[in-house]
Formats: sequence, structure tokens, C-alpha cells
Amino acid sequence: MMPIMLFLFTMKIHAFASTTAGAAFEPFEYELGDLRHDEVDVAVESCGICHSDLSMRNNDWGISAYPFIGGHEVVGRITAKGEHVSDLEIGQRVGVGWYSRSCGRCAPCLNGDQNLCVVAEGTIVHRHGGFADSVRSQALWCTPLPDALDPQSAGPLFCGGITVFNPIVQNGVVATDHVAVVGIGGLGHLAIQFLSAWGCEVTAITTSESKADEAKKLGADHVLISKDLDAMKAAAGSFRMILSTVNVPLDWELYISLLARRGTLHLVGAVPSVTTGSFPLIEQQKSISGSPLGSPGLVQTMLAFCARKGIAPVTQSFKMSEINAAFDELEAGHARYRLVLESDF
Amino acid sequence: MMPIMLFLFTMKIHAFASTTAGAAFEPFEYELGDLRHDEVDVAVESCGICHSDLSMRNNDWGISAYPFIGGHEVVGRITAKGEHVSDLEIGQRVGVGWYSRSCGRCAPCLNGDQNLCVVAEGTIVHRHGGFADSVRSQALWCTPLPDALDPQSAGPLFCGGITVFNPIVQNGVVATDHVAVVGIGGLGHLAIQFLSAWGCEVTAITTSESKADEAKKLGADHVLISKDLDAMKAAAGSFRMILSTVNVPLDWELYISLLARRGTLHLVGAVPSVTTGSFPLIEQQKSISGSPLGSPGLVQTMLAFCARKGIAPVTQSFKMSEINAAFDELEAGHARYRLVLESDF
Repeated sequence: MMPIMLFLFTMKIHAFASTTAGAAFEPFEYELGDLRHDEVDVAVESCGICHSDLSMRNNDWGISAYPFIGGHEVVGRITAKGEHVSDLEIGQRVGVGWYSRSCGRCAPCLNGDQNLCVVAEGTIVHRHGGFADSVRSQALWCTPLPDALDPQSAGPLFCGGITVFNPIVQNGVVATDHVAVVGIGGLGHLAIQFLSAWGCEVTAITTSESKADEAKKLGADHVLISKDLDAMKAAAGSFRMILSTVNVPLDWELYISLLARRGTLHLVGAVPSVTTGSFPLIEQQKSISGSPLGSPGLVQTMLAFCARKGIAPVTQSFKMSEINAAFDELEAGHARYRLVLESDF
Repeated sequence: MMPIMLFLFTMKIHAFASTTAGAAFEPFEYELGDLRHDEVDVAVESCGICHSDLSMRNNDWGISAYPFIGGHEVVGRITAKGEHVSDLEIGQRVGVGWYSRSCGRCAPCLNGDQNLCVVAEGTIVHRHGGFADSVRSQALWCTPLPDALDPQSAGPLFCGGITVFNPIVQNGVVATDHVAVVGIGGLGHLAIQFLSAWGCEVTAITTSESKADEAKKLGADHVLISKDLDAMKAAAGSFRMILSTVNVPLDWELYISLLARRGTLHLVGAVPSVTTGSFPLIEQQKSISGSPLGSPGLVQTMLAFCARKGIAPVTQSFKMSEINAAFDELEAGHARYRLVLESDF
């Protein structure tokens, strides 16, 4: 038998990069080295824009490297695969999200929590992401896209989607639960769809009355306007889980008071400080929890659920070459609900 | 058949009461009205002293009524029972803890969370407790004491004990978990015993090096001195649960960093403020949780576990008439580990 021979080559990638913190994106080229044995290259068809792309472009978290190429909600097709990739085929359509490598040997990895791998690599953290014609990832983090899902809108599932799907699973939410979603944006509009399809009674909590009707169309049974303190107080003790998707501080003890006994206020948005006395947690056995994105296994489960239930991100499309116009929309808070760049390289 | 006849009488109770916030206890008598159909009277044999008796005597929480009769870790014998009490017998030895009535009809009650009943009555909250020759309770909240347990030391199980037993069950702790207990006092010394008997690897966290040996005798595998920051930092990522039994603020993000992925920092002690950024919770799917005492069903389970595993509070005894000397010991922080008053009326 002949050993398998692999054609390893240096690939030139066309991308859009920000060269300093906060700078607009500009055309940029770079070369990828040899493909590792467990990696694939994915030709980007489309790539969602996540608020964390903006935070990373601006170096808000102090972990960005420049030139910075964002993009971690990729849908595309496999163009090359490493020696030990047996589960994906050239030409197969996959999605890539926030993570693109985990070690496979730490306790989290061994227990199916690859998203909690302590040396997991973020697709846009000291690596180049999907605002490009190609992106590279460990095969494990490329999940085949079910045929039933529209590839042009599916990208946001791989970051925004799994970020809000994961807490439903981790917190053991069931169909008889009444749950709330804080914020009706890129994450919140998916959370409402997931929880509604999950069979739950769903309340959307928003500052914006203008989003009430849209929240109901997405599947919310009720809408609470957070500025209406009387309505908020009347909802005390209601929710098994409050999933907060926002990046702003809340009146924490007020939100904890909205939880039913054993309820959890689950955070997926970055806020600098969460503060509460211990009694609001102790009295009715409540908790404050958080989680990052989900594991590859859960991404697969989420995609099958989306296919079966007809769940999809609501997106606005831009050409990849219009990336700066799209970021302007995002910064202005105009996105309804997720922006997607379509490759026009 | 003759209907069951009940002899209802007005009973004079001898007790020790504090007449104003912070005042020493003095002999006090009061009369109990008719026994309700679901209640029993318990002749107090002994009664533990909990830190909350001190907080309530001093009206620290603003909910005390005077004359105040504390005591909610009672062991004693049934002396009278209401018309519909069929599961307890006159002369039977039982324990009574923090709660002495729940409604039986609210969602928590119907689901076995009677400890979360929204109208539950605290034994010493606008009622008279166990620093007396008799205490009254709904029969549901009187749990028979297994013969294998020493009645003179068992009282503290009914408040301090169940307070730390409950989180082990609620958080699904299992024998393969590494867990930590913060504070080696009335609650902590029981938590260490429970978790050790549960099969866990147990680390005691204390400010006091002098308690290290005692913690190991109680079953701790390791002791962390919280002032030793190098040792604390070296323990990062270790614990599935940190059970904090103390009433003082901690360096919250440091303690969260000690949690393993999916770990919870569980609070049973009253602290005015818990503060953390959201990232320390999100990154490794951690939580901050709390709980009050457990349900009657769980008290029964705990007592059976104590009997099977030889777990008992470590107590110092005083005569009931020495109540003020005992409170002086408690206030001075000298209790090792739980004080119990023996009735000498």
C-alpha cells in the first residue's frame, strides 16, 4: 500500500484587516503556512458580524493583535484537509464559530466541554478570522451545515446562536418553564426563537417598546418594558431562567427578584460588575451564572433543532467589500438583528 | 364509635426572653393558646444556639419582635398533638429547626420545597422559640430523631446541619468532586463531615492556622489558609463547589477563580454585597448560588445519613439557665463548634 500523500502548499488569503485599534478595515493579504494534520481550510461564502468583532477591532478587551482580521460566524466549503481529517470532505459546507482549536486532552475536552478547554484558540484571537476568502480551523470546530438551513443566514448560529442555545441546555430548561430573555438583539432574537420552540412560556424584557411586536413575532408570549417599574415588580417570582444578552449593567437585585425559586440569572454578555446581597440568592435558592459558547457536539444538536423547527437568524446582508458600512450600522445600533457579509472577493 | 376527644388547654411556658434589642435574656413566662389541628407541643430537652439567634436578639435584620425568645435547634419529646397529627406519638423524640410552619398549598410546598414556601413561619420570627421548656410547631416540621443519634448533640443538625447539607444535594455534588468549605465554625465543621462522608476530596479554607489540625480531624483532606495568597492562587480551577459558611465579604473574584469549570460558589452566610465581573462566570461556566435550610424530607435524609455515618455536631453544653454566659461565648467567637443549652427548668 502506498502511504497517503498530501499536497501541502502556501496559500495566499485575501482579507479585510484593521491595522490599529479602532481603525476601519482595509484590503489585506496574508499567507497561511502548511495545513496541520487535523485542520481544514474553508472557503468563506458568508460571515456574520458579532458585537465581539467590534470589541476586538477596538481592542476593548486588551487581547487584540494587529493587523486584525475579525469574523467568526463563517459558512463556507472545505477546500483542503489535513492528513487525519476523515469526517469532512472537500466541498462539504460547514460553519466555523468563535473557537477553532481545542487540545483534546484536558479534562474539559475529555468530558465533552471542548468549549471550556483551557487552551482553546479563538478564531480571531491571535489568528485571522473569516472577513476573508478563506479561514482555517481544526476540523473538530467545523460543523456540517444541514441542507435544510439557508447558508446565507446560518452564519450567526455559530456564535450568537450557540451562545444562547447553550444556557438552555446547561440550565436544564424544560417546556413547562417560564423564562425571560433580556435584550432583543443579535443574541436575544435567537434566544426567543429557541425558547419558544423549546415549548417554554417566554417573556422578552426590553428597554424599547418599539421592539415589542417584533419580539412577539419571534415567539415571545409576553413583553416586559424594563423602564416600567410597576410591571417589573408585578413579575416578581416568575422566571425559571432569565437569560441576559445585554452588555449593560442591570438593576441586579430587581432582576433576581423576578426569578422563581431555584431560578438562575444567566449572563452571556460582558458586564464589568454584577452586585447583589447574599439574601436575594439564599432565600429562594437562586443563582447568577454564566457561560461561553457551546461544545461542537451541542452546535450539531442546535443545527438539527434549527432545521427541524425552522429557526434562523434574521439577517441583513452586505457584500464583504462593504464591511465598513456594515460596521457603521452595528455601531449605530441599527442591526435588525444580525449583519452578514457575503463574500465578493 | 365515639369521636376522638381532644383535651385543649392553655399551657404556661417557662422561657428566657430578651425584652429589647441586644438585651440579656431573662426568665419569662407566656401562655400558648389552643393547639391547632396540625400542630404538636415539644418539651425541650436541649436547644442549640445559632448565630442567627444572636442576630435576631440584636434585631440585626430588622424583623425581631420583643419579648424575643430565640432557639431553633430543638430536641425534645412530643407532649401534645393536634387532631390531625397521625404520624407522631406522644413521648416521641423529635427535632425542630428554623421553620415551624409552611402552607402546604403553594407551588414550592406542593413540589417538596416546603423550605421555600413563601409564607413559611420561622420558629423565632414573631413566634416564641426553644429557649424554653416547650415549643410549638406544625407536625410537618418535627422530624423524628433516629435512636442512633445522641439527643444532647443533635439539635444543631436542625439548623446549622441542614443549612450545609442542603447545598450538597441541591448542587448535585458527587463523591468524585473536589469541594471546599470556607469557615470552620458551627456550619463549616458539619459541612466538612458531610462532604467527607459523601466521598469527596475536601479542602477547608480558613483564616486561622490554629484550626488546620482540627479541620483534618473532621475529615478535610487539605487546608488552605486564605491569607496565603500564593497558596490560594495555586489552587485556581480546583473546586466543583465552594461552600461559604462565613458572614464576611470575600475577595469574590479570587474565590471564583478557585472553582473548576461548571463550579459554583455557594453562599449560606449573610453578606451585604457580592460583586464580580461577568467574565469570571462566563469563561468557565461558573455560578454564584445560595440556599436557605432544607425541606423536611431532606432533614429526614440527613438524619439517616448522620446515623449511618456517625456524623454529629461537636458541641459545648451549658445549662439553659446559663444562657447569657453561652451567648457571651458565642459573641466572643469561642464556640468550638456549636453551643447547646440543656433544659434545667
